[in-house]
Amino acid sequence: LNRIKASGLKLRFCTNETQATREKFVKKLQGMGFDISVAEVTAPAPAACRILKERSLRPHLLVHNDLVPEFAEIDKANPNCVVIGDAAENFTYANLNEAFRVLIGMEKPVLISLGRGRYYKETDGLKLDVGAYMKALEYACDVQAEVVGKPAKTFFESALAEMGVPPQQAIMIGDDIVNDVGGAQQCGMRALQVRTGKYRPCDENHPHVKPDAYVNNLAEAVDIILQQL
Amino acid sequence: LNRIKASGLKLRFCTNETQATREKFVKKLQGMGFDISVAEVTAPAPAACRILKERSLRPHLLVHNDLVPEFAEIDKANPNCVVIGDAAENFTYANLNEAFRVLIGMEKPVLISLGRGRYYKETDGLKLDVGAYMKALEYACDVQAEVVGKPAKTFFESALAEMGVPPQQAIMIGDDIVNDVGGAQQCGMRALQVRTGKYRPCDENHPHVKPDAYVNNLAEAVDIILQQL
Repeated sequence: LNRIKASGLKLRFCTNETQATREKFVKKLQGMGFDISVAEVTAPAPAACRILKERSLRPHLLVHNDLVPEFAEIDKANPNCVVIGDAAENFTYANLNEAFRVLIGMEKPVLISLGRGRYYKETDGLKLDVGAYMKALEYACDVQAEVVGKPAKTFFESALAEMGVPPQQAIMIGDDIVNDVGGAQQCGMRALQVRTGKYRPCDENHPHVKPDAYVNNLAEAVDIILQQL
Repeated sequence: LNRIKASGLKLRFCTNETQATREKFVKKLQGMGFDISVAEVTAPAPAACRILKERSLRPHLLVHNDLVPEFAEIDKANPNCVVIGDAAENFTYANLNEAFRVLIGMEKPVLISLGRGRYYKETDGLKLDVGAYMKALEYACDVQAEVVGKPAKTFFESALAEMGVPPQQAIMIGDDIVNDVGGAQQCGMRALQVRTGKYRPCDENHPHVKPDAYVNNLAEAVDIILQQL
């Protein structure tokens, strides 16, 4: 990261993290030694807040407690949409029924989902991600959710707009073949897949997505990018 | 019911009830004055048990506590499928994650769902039905559930087999335009919709399903059937 920043290239961190505010997320990465600030992060919750403001939507929130502060400035009285994130322990039977009732009670239900992930791994095992609960509400209310976050095109476009860079001049580095690589490419960017984290060897035979290149780690991605300047 | 039974016609009760055993279900109806016995009821749980036995499947159950006795004779050790019913309060975050982990851990995940209902009404409000949770697991595991219960063709075929009656000689009476009327018709039966219970006037403009006739109540249905003998 320091080499990229020193080179004068513009940099943006795109995360689908919805279990915590950007503040918490950034603190965690700073603790690991990364030079990163909140202003450099594109995340689903603030992207959703922009949509809510633009369309005068007042959300009923079904999100993680730690994400609630991101919606501090949003009017939540008399809700006319539902925003769902990875609510984890907040995905109770009662909370799901409540979100469902708010949604089905609308003349034209609006469901905004902070991602469409199927599942993820934690130390105590696999967990259903927000996408599964999104599908449950979609089916019950016969509605299609609007997905904010990777791989949504609008999400990458937000990140590009924040940098003031056209997609052809930007490159995405990520470990997720669909959310990172596929999403960025659909937006007109190039994308490198790092063979760390979520990467699986079978990704290299993915039926729809082919990265512009593979790298073994982030440092190798930086080498390639700086060589081509 | 007494008039139908006195006429010598064969009779079968088809329910999608999965929050209780047939014993409990029958007791409730008996308490309301209906002449009904457990042997006359076709319900999703025993239909699922037949499938489990036929295919040597050992289920992980995500069902209502009161339904568990229906699976008493089924081997549940080292599960190789997941059976989901309307688990109600048992639809906890922990239980959903556990069912998901069992399913995703299989080489070829088998998910059997006791119905595909979207939601239903209880005295304290609308509740998400089994179909919504089925969709969540389907999406997370990229699998298609096998649905037992109305409107599944195999479910009506079971009821017909239990009576020893071909579909052309059977008639379904129900209040649900899709699950009762549509399901029975797809199986080759005729079907009457009663204008009680779940019936809504807009059902009469349903885009796909048209009952063979409407009746205002069960007594009127019996009148019509007995007249045509």
